Amino acid sequence: MTKHSSENQLKTPRTKLKRLSARGSYDRETIYDILDSGFICHIGFVADGQPYVIPTSYARIGDHLYIHGSSAGRMLGNLSRGIDICLTVTHIDALVLARSAFHHSINYRSVVVLGKAEPVTDENDKNTALKAFTEHIIPGRWAETRWPSKLELKATSVLRLPIEEASAKIRTGDPKDDEEDYEMDVWAGVLPLRLIPGEPFPDSRLKEDIAIPQYLLEYKKRGPK
Amino acid sequence: MTKHSSENQLKTPRTKLKRLSARGSYDRETIYDILDSGFICHIGFVADGQPYVIPTSYARIGDHLYIHGSSAGRMLGNLSRGIDICLTVTHIDALVLARSAFHHSINYRSVVVLGKAEPVTDENDKNTALKAFTEHIIPGRWAETRWPSKLELKATSVLRLPIEEASAKIRTGDPKDDEEDYEMDVWAGVLPLRLIPGEPFPDSRLKEDIAIPQYLLEYKKRGPK
Repeated sequence: MTKHSSENQLKTPRTKLKRLSARGSYDRETIYDILDSGFICHIGFVADGQPYVIPTSYARIGDHLYIHGSSAGRMLGNLSRGIDICLTVTHIDALVLARSAFHHSINYRSVVVLGKAEPVTDENDKNTALKAFTEHIIPGRWAETRWPSKLELKATSVLRLPIEEASAKIRTGDPKDDEEDYEMDVWAGVLPLRLIPGEPFPDSRLKEDIAIPQYLLEYKKRGPK
Repeated sequence: MTKHSSENQLKTPRTKLKRLSARGSYDRETIYDILDSGFICHIGFVADGQPYVIPTSYARIGDHLYIHGSSAGRMLGNLSRGIDICLTVTHIDALVLARSAFHHSINYRSVVVLGKAEPVTDENDKNTALKAFTEHIIPGRWAETRWPSKLELKATSVLRLPIEEASAKIRTGDPKDDEEDYEMDVWAGVLPLRLIPGEPFPDSRLKEDIAIPQYLLEYKKRGPK
């Protein structure tokens, strides 16, 4: 089975949208596009019967999502035991202003991935994952930095989640008002929202004569993917 | 007990930060400031043993958070049964570029609230909550819209979550590099990120001669709170 012929695996009774199913999508292209456009996810897991939702950074390599952190934290410690988790990525694209309060909405793209994370223990694999985090956020940054030492790699827990059960949900376009409301003298439409970089702010201990690197200027111009 | 003397209630063994406790905060002022600066949360809940994390909009009124949706959906249907949930709000403020790959980080503010949601059934209370959603996102919008009908109120599930067990986690400022890395000739610092509104885009069926309202121009200039 080739990578992109396994689309139907991603749709299961647990990931199938129960409402507004026209907004749902289950193919890898759509899901990967949304995943690759972000760098912060929210991970849901259960500890002592209580669900927790914790934000963390992530990167995709092939058909796996990678997360990392200290194994001393609540999340990584729990996740490394192979419990069921949910990893959700959400992009807010616009406020949708309808003529009726009821039909106000938000244009967004989100992905939900269900599964169990597994620890990445091989040193090279861990290093590859850490490189992916940096390069996923700011392409070009990794080459310039001091790379992780053996001790740092040991102190970092890296987990990977196979993308096998997932769904995307997307809302785009105009508000949908009730037919009789279209006659109202009220402005309606969408207000786009985008995460935009400001001016790079140098570290208070930055050495003199170090210019802002080209890849950062390009990132600033382009914004997050 | 006055509202702001009950701070210690919010810190419990379940919300106490296990790592980097200097980043943690448990007072209502800090937590409410972060909650009021956003409009999208991620809600974690368990259904058939599987945790789910779903993005949704919210608004705070006093010491409660309100969410809404269709009771036909997976989330509202489950939540209205009074199960344990986690509501998390995250703001990404900046990328933090350290000299070492290992110390790269993100400046952020997040809040985690644990508890059980309860249905809001009174029609006036539901209406007040729906007004809060609209006004929380775009102050000034509610007055101009067509307000919810009895039928619409009935079709909408509104739930509220008391803010009784919560924590905030905040990272700000410069990267923290290992002492020996400060000598490296590598740019280090922070790159601020902010959700910024673009140009309002009129609905394809907008009536002629309806100008963009003043509150929307102000929102566009100011951005999300």
